[in-house]
Amino acid sequence: MTQDRRSGGRRSRSMRGGGIPQLPWQRVSNPYSPMQMLDEERMEVLHRSSMRILSELGIRVMSTRAMDLFEKAGAIVDRESQTIRIDETLVKEALRTAPRRFTLTGRNPDKQLEIGGNALVFGLVAGPPNVHDRINGRRAGNLADYENFTRLAHYFNAIHILGNQVCAPIELPANSRHLDTYKANLSLSDLSFHCSAIGRGRAMDAINMMAIGRGITLEEMRASPGVITIISVNSPRLFDDAMADGLMAMAEHGQPVTVTPFTLMGAMTPVTLAAALCQQNAEALFGVVLTQLVNPGTPVMYGAFTSNVDMRSGAPAFGTPENTKANIIAGQLARRYGLPYRTSNANASNAVDLQAAYETEMATWGAVLGGANLIYHAAGWLEGGLTASYEKLVLDVEILQNMMEFLRPMPFEEDDLGFEAIKAVPAGGHFFGSEHTMSRYETAFYQPMLSNWQNYGSWQEAGARDALERATGLWQQALREYQEPALDEAVREELEAYITRRRTEIGAGEP
Amino acid sequence: MTQDRRSGGRRSRSMRGGGIPQLPWQRVSNPYSPMQMLDEERMEVLHRSSMRILSELGIRVMSTRAMDLFEKAGAIVDRESQTIRIDETLVKEALRTAPRRFTLTGRNPDKQLEIGGNALVFGLVAGPPNVHDRINGRRAGNLADYENFTRLAHYFNAIHILGNQVCAPIELPANSRHLDTYKANLSLSDLSFHCSAIGRGRAMDAINMMAIGRGITLEEMRASPGVITIISVNSPRLFDDAMADGLMAMAEHGQPVTVTPFTLMGAMTPVTLAAALCQQNAEALFGVVLTQLVNPGTPVMYGAFTSNVDMRSGAPAFGTPENTKANIIAGQLARRYGLPYRTSNANASNAVDLQAAYETEMATWGAVLGGANLIYHAAGWLEGGLTASYEKLVLDVEILQNMMEFLRPMPFEEDDLGFEAIKAVPAGGHFFGSEHTMSRYETAFYQPMLSNWQNYGSWQEAGARDALERATGLWQQALREYQEPALDEAVREELEAYITRRRTEIGAGEP
Repeated sequence: MTQDRRSGGRRSRSMRGGGIPQLPWQRVSNPYSPMQMLDEERMEVLHRSSMRILSELGIRVMSTRAMDLFEKAGAIVDRESQTIRIDETLVKEALRTAPRRFTLTGRNPDKQLEIGGNALVFGLVAGPPNVHDRINGRRAGNLADYENFTRLAHYFNAIHILGNQVCAPIELPANSRHLDTYKANLSLSDLSFHCSAIGRGRAMDAINMMAIGRGITLEEMRASPGVITIISVNSPRLFDDAMADGLMAMAEHGQPVTVTPFTLMGAMTPVTLAAALCQQNAEALFGVVLTQLVNPGTPVMYGAFTSNVDMRSGAPAFGTPENTKANIIAGQLARRYGLPYRTSNANASNAVDLQAAYETEMATWGAVLGGANLIYHAAGWLEGGLTASYEKLVLDVEILQNMMEFLRPMPFEEDDLGFEAIKAVPAGGHFFGSEHTMSRYETAFYQPMLSNWQNYGSWQEAGARDALERATGLWQQALREYQEPALDEAVREELEAYITRRRTEIGAGEP
Repeated sequence: MTQDRRSGGRRSRSMRGGGIPQLPWQRVSNPYSPMQMLDEERMEVLHRSSMRILSELGIRVMSTRAMDLFEKAGAIVDRESQTIRIDETLVKEALRTAPRRFTLTGRNPDKQLEIGGNALVFGLVAGPPNVHDRINGRRAGNLADYENFTRLAHYFNAIHILGNQVCAPIELPANSRHLDTYKANLSLSDLSFHCSAIGRGRAMDAINMMAIGRGITLEEMRASPGVITIISVNSPRLFDDAMADGLMAMAEHGQPVTVTPFTLMGAMTPVTLAAALCQQNAEALFGVVLTQLVNPGTPVMYGAFTSNVDMRSGAPAFGTPENTKANIIAGQLARRYGLPYRTSNANASNAVDLQAAYETEMATWGAVLGGANLIYHAAGWLEGGLTASYEKLVLDVEILQNMMEFLRPMPFEEDDLGFEAIKAVPAGGHFFGSEHTMSRYETAFYQPMLSNWQNYGSWQEAGARDALERATGLWQQALREYQEPALDEAVREELEAYITRRRTEIGAGEP
């Protein structure tokens, strides 16, 4: 990591991997202090209000096992209403055992990620039922597009991990399609992935298949996690049985869990940001406690997904100023508790247009200023999450690369100050040909892949293609240039055998 | 100002002024601490290197009067090379008399602006030779478009001041067209404006005409500035005679001056950001000293316009990661010297497209995080500044309004924490109809003018117009709804008489 951070080091291999200029694969870290939007006093007020929600109102969990665990730990459990009330002691105990950082390793150990501290990881979009590109239009999710998105995530170095079902391959049976997508994840890329944790089975299949892909045992994977999941809270204050079961399966096997309340202000929380943050905080901490009750030391992330709705229609809105503030303050909360922080890059536009771009920038800046460790849906999210977009993925990679360069500390050696170079150029002259320039010009600046800096005349002559049209050309080129990472034949057979067996079990009625 | 900052207060009048939902006219202030990208030690290194540039290399000024002023103040002046070398003492003396903040007042005293401190002012694009809109395409600047842009700047509350010749009306004589544009500024809007300071005449015409417009004397305007100008340094290290004369005319009359080195890394400065900042800093401080030598106490801004070129072509690039960092560190420098800080919102796209949006966001975030007091070219800049764009203006107003809302401190009263509201909604329920929501829903969230949050089906049925198409509709609607601000007939006649007289004088050969 230190090596990659040296000045120039992150850019010197820009062209590796094909004709599209892109930054080399790298671990990203954020060298700047996160923004402090709220002072300590107000942070304490948020915390106290969250604790009141947990101790006075409680959380409903539709899982007998979870109720048992909480009761044993001293929580007040009302079995009839499935409501669990906990006090701050339980939260504090959980925070003592939850790690401040953890690693995540897919098939390629060279791409091991650290999650926590100053590290920043970008995840592919996850979950949309639809797919869109400018050539073929909008269509239902399907395995061919799923595989293409997986290839693009492998191709574009800025994407660190795969999302959970980047699009849903709806032509496949709902209860076993996770096997097909996991297989695509493991054969078309060498990245780690977010797995589905809707129920125990999907989580276990991800854990087992990643272990096979890495050629290690479940015990070894416990020490070196390979998959991660998101447990979405059904806000307000509800964990359903499937999510609770998934969480517990992951925790039992030491795989990281991100607890993310789905908190759209005005719908799933009160309409005020302060209230939404209190509720989000209570719900996230409750999930954190559950992970530690199942298995102390389970890696767990503080997840935030607080945005607002359009109060005229109730439609979700993302990349709003309110969402940006939430992204920043949620980071303050996560750091207060010493937990790695996950947030998102979402937008509500129906097209890859100006709105998609400015909403995405607002969300991304909020995440970066908030000190996010994981930006989920960082590439490809469109239409409020209902569509995975090829052109949006390219736009997002460009935005992420711009951010990576923004996060690169400026070189500051004596020679970078350039006094002698300034001295050598007369007043009113220029620096194009000077030695100081010539020795640095190839790596001095970030070279974007999507931007066009031709003058207007040349741009017109070349066809006057706007950035959206260029984005289409870039994902097409990327798919042409994509090279499937090698997978050991024995591993491939073992994966196939696992999938065949599980299909049978699931077909026989496993939920 | 305090009144406007109260929670909700900035939004309660959203609909005032027409059918387009927009934020009310308001003074904007930035409540967050500016980003500290460089530590004190490195800031000191930049400062010291700048001082070396000033004392060892010097600045060329093509003005005998300026050389006289500097010589009298103790600078080392080489008349033959027109080079002036100054030491830190002169800089320190200038910083003692340069004010930390000042006001700027156009025809409407209710829109008086403070510039400095935490205040943030947005300026219209300035200077492009061309104009573009989606209906009529790209064309040379002309007075009809100039007037339309002035109307739009008056209509859209987010724009605080007019730029200097938002587009050049090239059908008019070059040496007197400033009279026509000043007249449009003063009759079609009630805002203050940036004037041209290419030579003494253009500056004096702006000062005189604004004084007429406000019905005050030059002496009164000295105490309450009404116009502002930018003095662009011909980097590296050159002030030409016209700019020096303009600067001195403004300073003599107590009108604010923004000294802005035009420093594209790799062309007008060395290729490294550290060197560019040292050079920019030296050049800006030199101009600051000149303003104070002419007239101690002249309001003067620290201007920054450091970006990079595309090293493959030499073309200027804006809104790059390097530009974003420069915007932030330049703010640190300005604050170090206690000077109000001007920077820009620029992009290099040839079209109002994704690139224009993400480059604009990068530049704007850099400016805001850098604690800018004035973002020049904040609305309408396209094509590296060669075109003023109608649709870009609408996009930018949306981006600025998003930023204004981001800068609005979150309400944090007891009731905002919403404990009782959370208590009243069962686990898994929703907050749409709750009293806490209903009493706030109209003002709880920012309502964008350009974004569309319909679901995909409704959006398709409504014509599937993307944000660019919607932007066209918005500027057309704004021009329809625009109302010319009242101008006293006697003032109008006095302005006409002034213009007639000046046209004659200029026609008789005044440069």
